[in-house]
Amino acid sequence: MTKYILSSRPFKPELINEIKKIAPEYDFITEIATTEAWQQVEITIGWQKKWDKLLAPNSNLKWVQSISAGVDYLPLQDFKKQNILLTNAKGIHKEAISEHVLTTILMRLRGFNEAAVGQRHKKWQQTIFYGKLEEQKILIVGTGQIGQELAGTLNILGNHPTGINTSGHSAQNFTNTHAISELKTIAQQFDFIVNILPLTAETYHLYDTEFFNLLRKTATFINVGRGASVDTPALVKALQEQTIAYAALDVFEEEPLASNSPLWELDNILITPHIAGMVPHFQQKFMRIFLKNLDSFVKTQAVSQNQVDLTKGY
Amino acid sequence: MTKYILSSRPFKPELINEIKKIAPEYDFITEIATTEAWQQVEITIGWQKKWDKLLAPNSNLKWVQSISAGVDYLPLQDFKKQNILLTNAKGIHKEAISEHVLTTILMRLRGFNEAAVGQRHKKWQQTIFYGKLEEQKILIVGTGQIGQELAGTLNILGNHPTGINTSGHSAQNFTNTHAISELKTIAQQFDFIVNILPLTAETYHLYDTEFFNLLRKTATFINVGRGASVDTPALVKALQEQTIAYAALDVFEEEPLASNSPLWELDNILITPHIAGMVPHFQQKFMRIFLKNLDSFVKTQAVSQNQVDLTKGY
Repeated sequence: MTKYILSSRPFKPELINEIKKIAPEYDFITEIATTEAWQQVEITIGWQKKWDKLLAPNSNLKWVQSISAGVDYLPLQDFKKQNILLTNAKGIHKEAISEHVLTTILMRLRGFNEAAVGQRHKKWQQTIFYGKLEEQKILIVGTGQIGQELAGTLNILGNHPTGINTSGHSAQNFTNTHAISELKTIAQQFDFIVNILPLTAETYHLYDTEFFNLLRKTATFINVGRGASVDTPALVKALQEQTIAYAALDVFEEEPLASNSPLWELDNILITPHIAGMVPHFQQKFMRIFLKNLDSFVKTQAVSQNQVDLTKGY
Repeated sequence: MTKYILSSRPFKPELINEIKKIAPEYDFITEIATTEAWQQVEITIGWQKKWDKLLAPNSNLKWVQSISAGVDYLPLQDFKKQNILLTNAKGIHKEAISEHVLTTILMRLRGFNEAAVGQRHKKWQQTIFYGKLEEQKILIVGTGQIGQELAGTLNILGNHPTGINTSGHSAQNFTNTHAISELKTIAQQFDFIVNILPLTAETYHLYDTEFFNLLRKTATFINVGRGASVDTPALVKALQEQTIAYAALDVFEEEPLASNSPLWELDNILITPHIAGMVPHFQQKFMRIFLKNLDSFVKTQAVSQNQVDLTKGY
């Protein structure tokens, strides 16, 4: 009986041919045609809510390859219970997200946000210059691949950011790192705080009223990690009352952001629709990870890279 | 009789003290109090339209230090006739303008402009990814200090722009330069065209309908030089009809841009209110140029740097 690789999105035929070469006994499909077919699915690329049949005890699902780096939206506990391997797409988006964050920092520093408000109201209005990139104190919360890429780009532009990770261990391109437990102790030293952390039980609503109250009044908060790491009403209040000066958000607790969200009403905010990770040639880059793992999987039933720890959630 | 340095703007007392140390026989003033005082002005910092008395044959004006790099707004022919020296503030703004242009390019590439339109309409809408910085073909029209600074920054980020100057002579940080006479021949090769040229008789309306018709449909036109280098109705039409994809304008034929300008109505445009040159510590940086020239002027009646050729206009 043919085994299936069920994908939540289509791929170019050239890439599907590559799959067939490595794993000829598998068919690549994007739809389940019959009830029996559910039991033939051994691998999925991505995940859809309607695929919960694949979590039943009689399912043959063995491996889920996430299309994103973050896996917080997946049923991790069920995967763990059923011994389903999970791999993510970590590494593909690092350059894109780094460039996105650099852009938001430069926009803030050079007054592009006031210009955007002016353009919104068809009004030529003075903007403020907030300082040179080299002189900004930037805190990058998350020193994984994306954080390191961003720190490296900032380094060549003359800025040396501080990093935060679980234990405060050293990380490439950072001269200075702290443990996450010190976040609230050191937060007030920074002009920019950039969240890149994955969403886990520990990072849910990490950025709350207490946190925003600790920041400089001139601080900018940037989120390219996950929306639910932020207590949104607390951030809205901090921006409304100018407890902090500015936020640039690419991710939100609910996406798409509802048209009646109070965030849209604020002038001291940059809202982007979850675009920081947009990359060129995504399919090829993604397939480089998947095909390597597939090769290993068909030979040994194990994956060779990007495996997610189902307890940690990243 | 005391001689005057008449300034169009105030400076910090510490800096005025520096002037006094170098040229004790001069007083720094910002207003003319008596009719006789006009004849006591030997030097101006900046220029105001109401100062035309200083162009009369019986005036003692000898040197004008412009506050900006561009001097197109000054009565150059009158200065020439009266043998008035003119110096500009070239060099102060190069890092700022370079950073501004980098920001606009990154904003375009990473879909921030569609996000701005979305934010304007409180609407979460897909944005497009236009490509990686390294892969963009960028033409920098003007390879002076600002152009070289911008090319240098692009170089360290992996991009190697082409330059245009009067004769096509080589310039630092450019691997490839062309003469201005070739502009229309090569324009269609580029994704981004950045104007940094000063405004002169030769550059007035250089970017006209013929030019925009030659560009790629996907091209972005960036202007941080002078507004009047662009035939504005031609650009409006090119943007409306999507002959070109996008423009980022910091300078305009008339500033401030009138609230009924058709430019405000366009979605495929970034309008900034002449902010590209904003720098921190402007007064100190400006005074470094002025004081050095002042020292030379009191000793030899000549300036030592940043002198403008009154015929060329830059």
